[in-house]
Amino acid sequence: MRLTTFTDFGLRAMIRLAQDPQTPLSSAEIAEEFAISRHHLAKAMATLARAGLIVTRRGGGGGAILARPPAEISLGEVFRALNAEEPLVECFQSDGGHCVATNRCRLRARLVIAQEAFMASLDQSTLADVALEPQAFALEAAP
Amino acid sequence: MRLTTFTDFGLRAMIRLAQDPQTPLSSAEIAEEFAISRHHLAKAMATLARAGLIVTRRGGGGGAILARPPAEISLGEVFRALNAEEPLVECFQSDGGHCVATNRCRLRARLVIAQEAFMASLDQSTLADVALEPQAFALEAAP
Repeated sequence: MRLTTFTDFGLRAMIRLAQDPQTPLSSAEIAEEFAISRHHLAKAMATLARAGLIVTRRGGGGGAILARPPAEISLGEVFRALNAEEPLVECFQSDGGHCVATNRCRLRARLVIAQEAFMASLDQSTLADVALEPQAFALEAAP
Repeated sequence: MRLTTFTDFGLRAMIRLAQDPQTPLSSAEIAEEFAISRHHLAKAMATLARAGLIVTRRGGGGGAILARPPAEISLGEVFRALNAEEPLVECFQSDGGHCVATNRCRLRARLVIAQEAFMASLDQSTLADVALEPQAFALEAAP
C-alpha cells in the first residue's frame, strides 16, 4: 500500500498552506519549496479546489489559500478528496482492471471497509495538528 | 492510496491457494490463471514464504500451499507480511525520499496510525472468508 504521488503532493500543499493560512501561495511556489514537480502538484491542487478545500486567485499576488481555517479541515476530508478518483486496487477501476475473478471477489468489500477505517482514523486530526512550523523551511535551509 | 502490484499479486495468490488448500500450485499456474506476470507473482510468493504464510515444495507436483488452514490466516496478517518492506509514503523510506520537511513532519505519525487502523480492519477477516469459490474460474471462462 502506498500513497500515490497525487495524494502525497496534495497533502503537502495543504500542510504548507496551513502553515500560514492568510498568505496565498501558487503551485509554483509550493513546488519550489518542496522541490517537487510543479505540473503534478498543480493537478492535485486543482482537485483540492474542485473539492472546495482551497480557493485560488489568479494574477499578481494570486495563489491558493485554504477555504476554511486549518482546525476545521480534517485530514480524512483531504484524503477523501484526493482519493475520490483513485481506486485502491486496479480491480476497482470502472474500466475493469485485469483480475479474472473480479465478479466473484469477496475481498473487495473488505478492502473498502479497511480503507474507510484508514480515513476515519485521519478524521481525528485536522490540518492545524499537522501544519508545518513556520521555521521548518528556514531550518532545513541552514547548513 | 493504492495497493502496490506486489501486495495485489500476493493477495491474489493467497486467495487462490485458499480455494483448494490441499493442492500445491506453482507461481506459473497461478500467474496463468490470473493472467498476471509470473515474475512479479513469484517475488510476492517468496515474501509470503519467508513470512511463514505459505510452504513451497520444489519438483514435479511441487508448488505452494498455505502454511495453515485458511480460517487461521487473517487478511491483516497477509497485508502486514506483504507491506513489511514497503513504505506507505516516500518520506518513510530509510534512504530519505525527497520531502524537505521530513524531519519536522507531523503527518507521519498520523499516517502510521491510520495504516494500522486499515490493517486492524482486515484482521477481522480470514482467507476462509474471501477464498474464491471453486467455480469462479470456470464461470469466468464461460462466454
